[in-house]
This record gives sequence, structure tokens and C-alpha cells, in this order.
Amino acid sequence: MVGVSADASASGATAALREHVERLGLVDHHVHGTWTADADPVRLANALNEADTAPLADPRTAWDTQLGFAVRRWCAPLLDLEPHVAPEAYVARRAELGEEEVARRLLRPTNVDAWFVDTGWSTGLTSPDGLAALGGGTGHEVVRLETLAEQLLPTLDDPSSWAEAFGARVEEAARTSVGFKSVIAYRCGFAVDLAPPAPRAVAEAARRWHAGVVDGRAPRLDDPVLLVAGLYAALRTRRPLQLHVGFGDRDLDLAAVDPLLLTGLLRRDEVRGVPVMLLHCYPYERAAGYLAQAFEEVHLDVGLTTHFLGARGVGAVARSLELAPFHKVLYSSDAAGPAELHHLGARLWRNAVVSVLGGWVEQGEWSAGDAARVATMVGRDNARRVYLDA
Amino acid sequence: MVGVSADASASGATAALREHVERLGLVDHHVHGTWTADADPVRLANALNEADTAPLADPRTAWDTQLGFAVRRWCAPLLDLEPHVAPEAYVARRAELGEEEVARRLLRPTNVDAWFVDTGWSTGLTSPDGLAALGGGTGHEVVRLETLAEQLLPTLDDPSSWAEAFGARVEEAARTSVGFKSVIAYRCGFAVDLAPPAPRAVAEAARRWHAGVVDGRAPRLDDPVLLVAGLYAALRTRRPLQLHVGFGDRDLDLAAVDPLLLTGLLRRDEVRGVPVMLLHCYPYERAAGYLAQAFEEVHLDVGLTTHFLGARGVGAVARSLELAPFHKVLYSSDAAGPAELHHLGARLWRNAVVSVLGGWVEQGEWSAGDAARVATMVGRDNARRVYLDA
Amino acid sequence: MVGVSADASASGATAALREHVERLGLVDHHVHGTWTADADPVRLANALNEADTAPLADPRTAWDTQLGFAVRRWCAPLLDLEPHVAPEAYVARRAELGEEEVARRLLRPTNVDAWFVDTGWSTGLTSPDGLAALGGGTGHEVVRLETLAEQLLPTLDDPSSWAEAFGARVEEAARTSVGFKSVIAYRCGFAVDLAPPAPRAVAEAARRWHAGVVDGRAPRLDDPVLLVAGLYAALRTRRPLQLHVGFGDRDLDLAAVDPLLLTGLLRRDEVRGVPVMLLHCYPYERAAGYLAQAFEEVHLDVGLTTHFLGARGVGAVARSLELAPFHKVLYSSDAAGPAELHHLGARLWRNAVVSVLGGWVEQGEWSAGDAARVATMVGRDNARRVYLDA
Repeated sequence: MVGVSADASASGATAALREHVERLGLVDHHVHGTWTADADPVRLANALNEADTAPLADPRTAWDTQLGFAVRRWCAPLLDLEPHVAPEAYVARRAELGEEEVARRLLRPTNVDAWFVDTGWSTGLTSPDGLAALGGGTGHEVVRLETLAEQLLPTLDDPSSWAEAFGARVEEAARTSVGFKSVIAYRCGFAVDLAPPAPRAVAEAARRWHAGVVDGRAPRLDDPVLLVAGLYAALRTRRPLQLHVGFGDRDLDLAAVDPLLLTGLLRRDEVRGVPVMLLHCYPYERAAGYLAQAFEEVHLDVGLTTHFLGARGVGAVARSLELAPFHKVLYSSDAAGPAELHHLGARLWRNAVVSVLGGWVEQGEWSAGDAARVATMVGRDNARRVYLDA
Repeated sequence: MVGVSADASASGATAALREHVERLGLVDHHVHGTWTADADPVRLANALNEADTAPLADPRTAWDTQLGFAVRRWCAPLLDLEPHVAPEAYVARRAELGEEEVARRLLRPTNVDAWFVDTGWSTGLTSPDGLAALGGGTGHEVVRLETLAEQLLPTLDDPSSWAEAFGARVEEAARTSVGFKSVIAYRCGFAVDLAPPAPRAVAEAARRWHAGVVDGRAPRLDDPVLLVAGLYAALRTRRPLQLHVGFGDRDLDLAAVDPLLLTGLLRRDEVRGVPVMLLHCYPYERAAGYLAQAFEEVHLDVGLTTHFLGARGVGAVARSLELAPFHKVLYSSDAAGPAELHHLGARLWRNAVVSVLGGWVEQGEWSAGDAARVATMVGRDNARRVYLDA
Repeated sequence: MVGVSADASASGATAALREHVERLGLVDHHVHGTWTADADPVRLANALNEADTAPLADPRTAWDTQLGFAVRRWCAPLLDLEPHVAPEAYVARRAELGEEEVARRLLRPTNVDAWFVDTGWSTGLTSPDGLAALGGGTGHEVVRLETLAEQLLPTLDDPSSWAEAFGARVEEAARTSVGFKSVIAYRCGFAVDLAPPAPRAVAEAARRWHAGVVDGRAPRLDDPVLLVAGLYAALRTRRPLQLHVGFGDRDLDLAAVDPLLLTGLLRRDEVRGVPVMLLHCYPYERAAGYLAQAFEEVHLDVGLTTHFLGARGVGAVARSLELAPFHKVLYSSDAAGPAELHHLGARLWRNAVVSVLGGWVEQGEWSAGDAARVATMVGRDNARRVYLDA
């Protein structure tokens, strides 16, 4: 550290950064609604475990996690409880207040100015406008490709025309939404042929899928041919395309959602000029950061990770700031259901940014001005530029 | 960190946590015996290198490692030497004291109450009772499936009956041992078909294997069909099943022992309700933690890693506390041979837990009570519940 | 941390380590030349992005990266500017001074005594002697196998004799160079058959390749058969063999350059006794460290990573000191082009070593003497022993 004189105002610099970061109105570029009905303790406990799709054998165990500890630490005071209060007391107070009041208390302090809501999984969750009504700011829609496809299928007389009909729906959706989201990660993973499928193969796959329609409802879309065709339909609109990457529930194969499996797709001409947003990325943040440096179009966030890792989330934020150019890193919460997740997304991201960037300022590696500027880019301006200015 | 007032008693809290952790009697849920005969310097040096199965070209290089430095730092004082003493002096003092006295001096301060000993690799090593006699506490046996199979084979007249005979042996072993261990990681890795093999395929494989018996000794078991059949035999007993995962010697292919390759197996009905213990896990701690959240049955430890990483082991302990619910994380040393490894397993785990959990308490993320409680769960109670209360 | 008394002279120890590390004359065992002609701002910006092979859409974004911030922090003062100066001012001052003066100012303080220069990619870059003339110390050549092969091909009358002719060239090069370098990572990755190809297959591949010669110039060598044959030709000379591993530009498939894919090759007899140098390794430092412990021949560095990660580079240096024995870890910059990269390679490595090793000394884990000794091994002596004493 030759040449670094100890900065006498180091902690002053961190305090200034903290104030800047707290005041920054965020864009949460990937989020879901909050619960619209009161939740019982078992449902709440299961919501604290992202990965396990089976009901927890002992719901109390969900509280003995980084997320459970973070809820008790950071959310309890907003429900008039002491930090680290016992789970039972927390749950009781929550029931007393009711879901809507809990949401209001937890959402307002997030200081989020814009919520980009994936509406593709919305049963029992607030709409974009509903979320904004509770939390402040404005709600915007992100359209989930697989949901759109599943809604369309039963309405088709001739499934051979699926590609054309779906393309039209996607174009239409592009006019009213800020972007698209794909959960191909959950449906077949990335270790499939990601080249554009031949029209004949798409028509054939659509016919097979259509044969499964019962009572006007489509079976779950999991055919790689149609899923991949969906990605290209979205790419044609030039709107930002969000891709679930990495950590999720156990329905996915974590090894098959390594973002490096997207390298071939990212090299294709169809991707040029279309923002590709890699979501979550845990534990592949470094690979995602490499792709963000390698491809002008690639962006990433560590949403979901921050609240599930609680006290360890700061490391995920730090890893997202290695190879990725800073104009490619975004904030999201990926919260869904209990408003605790929305709150923690913002709270822990702010804490992490102050800790990580502030640390670099204190060590003399970064200037205080750069730290504030990068926090603003990641927390707000990158999302505005990518989604709203395009 | 809005809302966190600097905790004036922060370092007091860490001191209290340290005292709690030091007093905690551990369960070492995966360990091997100590050497029963005095070791010469070359043998000792080779034991300090886990991965290289060839004799070291220059045994002195084994000391210039994190493990070598940790031995000199933490074990030397227990042999009446200064911390960081030169390797030559350490080796000389060790020879002076003899293996048994060294073991006694290094094992007692581990404060381990129960040793779960993998007896499948035991030549020249103390038995569970022998280990407990030197180190205090009680010894328990973990039966290694591959060793059991290799012992059984030469006794069979008709190898076609191997499955049945092996199943009977496993059931018998389940009555006297606390659990089973598989080293399928070393024999064929996880990138094989992990579905239950057909009985005919098992019989066929057993015949092929039996044909290699010479002088009443079985060849090394490395047929995936039999190895996988062995896993299911163990699962049927409902006893905890330990799986070597990740880092080991170079006989294994590290890429083929990524725990994510177990995802398909973990989804199977045969696993429901049977504790699966992922051992070591380096450098796949994050993937193992994800599996521990996704599957009620999955547990993990970072034994072996702590002492081989020395000053860097604290990071491995921290990574094991990300996604995994805290009732799924266990302590082990995986020590084998020189008692330095047993000592360092406990010493460095305690240091890491105080540093990591204490750090969270000081930052206001965790309560002091939670930190002590999680330390107790990981160090002792989770193992008791999984192995002894089942 | 029982038994550790707080070391009153802890920060004194770090200060002494810093002085030792600053004075240490380094061997940069893998580097390229500096630019011989003045660079315009766009070229400079593109050089700050390793991974993206397409011209950056907005060159200003290259400065909003860890590398860009590190250049402004550490290089600006050597051009008489304030730390963290604006990119525009930095670029202007750079143009004012000219490339040669910039190089002189940035290279001298690296305190590098020996530069091992990969001359296989050298257009517009200084030679080993030219680099040494600017930066001090001595220049040595590392011969890139693929470049040698591409130069040889057009001179052959009978491409069937390629193997023999290439072997002769490699033997000749072994007499005047300190070692060989392969970029097979870029040409086909490691997920190919790495066993020695049959002579007939090599002759056949050479004929196919030769058929593409136009105007006396060979097409880019990307046939795995010839690339692998090249590795064995180098191994036969017993000279150190450098392999690009991990992070590089997007021409490579990052998943296909995981060093664990080299495990089978490393187990082969042909490798015994030949130093294999794994370069860069990001984000696979832990896997590389495992291989360095498992195989006597394997060495590693984290060159390239240190400057591209800037403030986060300290973690890469720390990860390189986990499983790898300390006599297997080396320093390199892998700098190429702007002398900022050469400067930052040394500057950030020294900072990281003081921070990481000094931290262990302060925590009482390592002795001050060991820290200085390991810094010397990694920074200088390991390279001398491997390349010069062999």
C-alpha cells in the first residue's frame, strides 16, 4: 500500500456513503407481489425456504437459517418488536397486524421508486400497481414467457400456428411491459440445444403439447424446443430479457443452470443489442461477471441471494463487483410473498454496498465519489437506462 | 446498517462466545483412528499432504503449507515447544515423546465427547475404543460399505447371491454402528447411473468381481453397479449415510465428486427420511449448502478442509453457513493418522466458529444467544439428533 | 484462539513485512511486452477489457471497472496526477507523455528483476530485451507452441513430417528459452482427448491443416490432434510448460478451461518431472490449488486476475494459498500492451501479499518470518528454481 496515507476521514467517508445509499430511491428490476391474504405460521416458514418444495417436516427449522435470523433482526423493529425476538413472538405479532399492515410497514422503508414485477407467477400476490400502492413508487410489468405461452395454447385452433401466434402475443406484450422473463432454467435447464429451432420442429412440438390440453388448460411447458423458440421470440422485440440463473428450488438441476452454459447463445447474432439480464446467479456470480465483461449485452444481479444469505449476503454483492463492468450490475430483490423478503432485499443490499464499497474507500482503493456513483448506477441508473431509456 | 447502534459490549460478547465454544464437548461425526506405531519424519510429511498419493519428492515441502504452518502454530505448544518452531525441532520432539504420548497430548484438549470412527480404513490406526481411550469420550463405529463388501466377497460360494448376502451384512452392521460411509467418490465418482441397478445386473457384476478373487482376497471394488447397489442396501436400513464429497487424494476425479451430481439420487423415494451426510465438500460447500436447504435429508460438514486450509479454514466454515439450515451442519475432523489432524480439526473449527459467528454478533447481525445456540447445534446437538436419537 | 496473546507489535510486524515485500525483486514468470506505439483512447479502453473481443460500444464504460479504478488509483500518481483522477485527464496526460515515457514510469517501480515474456503474441509489443530495457532487469523468452507450429507449417514440403519437424523446432527452442506456453485453452479447450495422438492421426491432421496454407501463411491452428501433439513435444524437452487456464477473452469457453479437465493428462507418465504451470486460473483457483497439492509437477499463479479484479484481487491471491504447497505458487502479471497492466500486476500483488500474509501474522496464525519467506518464494524463488535451476 505504498503511497496510501491513512485517510483520517475514512469513517467519515463511510458515513457519507451510508447516507447517500439510504437516500437512494431504488429500482427493483426483478420482484414479485406480496401476499394478499394473511398467512399462517406454517406457510410463512415454508416461504423462508426457497429450495425445498416439499413441506418442511418441522417448520420451526426454517427460522434457524440466515434468512430467519435476518427477518428477526431487521424486520422485527418495524413490527414494534425488539431485534432478534423469538420466532413465535414474531409470528404472533404478524398475525395481529395482518398481512396488509405488515406489508405496508415493511415495504415503505425499502425506498424503492420502481418495481418491475414478474407477473407470471401471481396467484395470491399483489399486482404491480397493488405492490406500488403498498410500497410507494410505480409498478411495471415484466411478462413471463412461459406463462404467456401456457395461456395462449388452449385458445389455438391450430397448434401448428403456435410460433406465429406466440410471436404476435410477445410483440403485443412488448408494448406494455418493461421486459420479458424466462424460467427455462426450471423447465429444462441450459444444457439443451439453444440454437433457434427449425419451424417444423416448433410446429411439431406445439402439436404434441396441444394434445395434452385438458379442460381448456395447458400442461406445464417443458419442451426445450418451444422454450428456446420462446427466447428468440422475445429477443426479436429487442426488450430486455431476464433469465433465472443459479439457485432456485430443487425442481431445477443447479448444475444445469450455470450461466456458462449460455455462452453459445450469447455469441449468436440474435442477441446483439438486446439486454440479457442474468438473475440471482448464486453460486455462479463469478461466471456471470465474466459473461458481463465478455458480452456487451449481459447484465447481472444477485437478487434472492442477498436475503437468503443474510449475514453472508455481503459476499455475494462483493463477488458481483469483480469482472463485471459497473454499468452491467443491477439491484433486485426477487422477493415473492411475505413482505419480509422485499424489505430484506433492499435493507441487506444497502448494508452490503456500504460495507463493500465503503471498505474500499477506507482502504484508499476507491474514491468516495466513485463509490457513491457506482452505488447509484447499480441501485437505480443501470435499470433505468436498460429498461426505460431503450 | 441503519438502526444498528454500536454495541459497546461487542468484544465482551465475543469473549463470552469463545468461552462457550471452548467448553462445548464436541461430537466428531466423521473421524479415523490415530497411528498406533511411531512415525518417521518422511511418513509424517506425507500424511500432511492429502492429495498426492505418490511419495513426496522432498518431504520438507510438506511443511510449507497451511497445514504445516498450523501444526507448528497450534500443536507445538502442546509438545512443550514454542509456536512456529522449526519443523526439524518439531519432528525431533515428536520422536522423543513417541506416538502414543503425542496422541494423548493432542487429543485430550480437543474436548470431543464422542468419536464416530470410519473403521473401513484402519490398518495401523486405533480402534474407536482405542481412540476414545487416548482422547476421552466414547468411540462409535461407522461402517464403510466398500470394505464390508470386499470382506464379504471371498466368503461367498455363489456370487450371484451377493446382493442378498450383502444386504444381510448391512442390516447386521446397522445394529451395532451409528451409520454407514461410502467412498463411491473414490471408486467411480458420482457421474454414473445412480438409479437402483436391476438385480440381474448386480448378480452379473458380482460374478465378474468374484472371478478376480485371488488367495481369498477380493480385488478393489470399483464397479458402479455394485457400488450403487451398496448405497441402496444402506438406505434400506434408514441409518445415516455418509458420502465422501469433494477434496480427497488424486485417485478421485474432483470434477466427478461435485455434490450436484447427487441431485437425481436425492430426489428418489428411497432417500426419503434417511439422513445423508455430505462430508468435506471442498470446494463445493455452496452447492452442498443448497442441497441441504433443498432436501430435508441432506446434511453437510467441512471436516478435513479446516485443517488442510489452516489460516484459510475460517472461510470454509463460513461458506457452510450460507444456504444450509443450521440444523443440517455438523462438525467433523476427518482426521486420520497423526493426532495433529485430530487436534487441528477441533482447534481450527472452534477458532473459526468464534471468528465467524462472533463477527456477526459484533456487527449486530446475530444475537449472542443465537450464536451460542448455533455453535452448540453444529458442534454437538445435530450429530446427537441425527445419529443417536433416530 | 485460546493461547493467542494479543501481539502488541502486530502492526509493526505488518510494516516490516511491507518493507520486505516492497524490496523484493520479482520474477514475472508470465508476461507480454508493452505497446511500442502511442495508443489512442479507444484502443486503451478496449485493452482494459480482457474478455470482450468486440470493440466496446461505449469506451468510457471500460473505466467504470475494477481495473479502470485501479489504474486511476495506482498509476495516476506516477504520471504526476492525483489518485482517482478523471479518465479524460488520465488519457490526456498519457498522450502528452507518450507510450515510451509512460512505460518507463510505470515499469521501473515494479521492481521486477526478470521478465519471462511469451513472445507468441507480439505484434506491436516490446521484445523481452526491449521490456527489460524499459523496466530494468533481464528479459527471457517463453516460446508459444501454437505460434511455433503456425510458423513452421508453410515451410514444410511434406506435411506428413510435421511431427518430426515440429519436435526438432521445439527441442531447438528449449535451448534458448526458459519454457513453453500453450494456448490450447483458446483453440479447443481441455474437454478433448488429451492422450498422445497416434502418429498416423497427427500426420493426417497436419495434411488437412497444410491444405489450408494460402500465400505462405498457415490458418489458425485449432485441431485438437495437433494441439495435443504439441503439448507432448514440449513435455519431452522437460522444460516448464505454461498452460492458460480459466479467464480470458470470450473466444474461449470458460467451462472448457476448468483445470480439473487436465486431471487425466496430469496422471500420465509423460508429465512426471516436468513442471506444469497453470496460469491465471480464475475462477478456478481452488481447483488449481488442489491439483498443485495432488501433483508434484503442478504450479499455479493468479496473474491477470490481480489487475482485472483491482480491489477484489486480494481474494484471488488468498485463494491461491489454500491447498497449494507454497513452493508451487508463483507471481506473474500476464500484462500485455499498456504498461498500466505491468505496473498493477506487481503493485496489487504486493498489496495483496502484505494484506493477506500480514493479516495472518497479526492474528497469530503465521510467524512474521514465515510470511516473509513465503512472499519471497512466491514472488521470486519458486520461479528461479523451476525455470532457471532446472
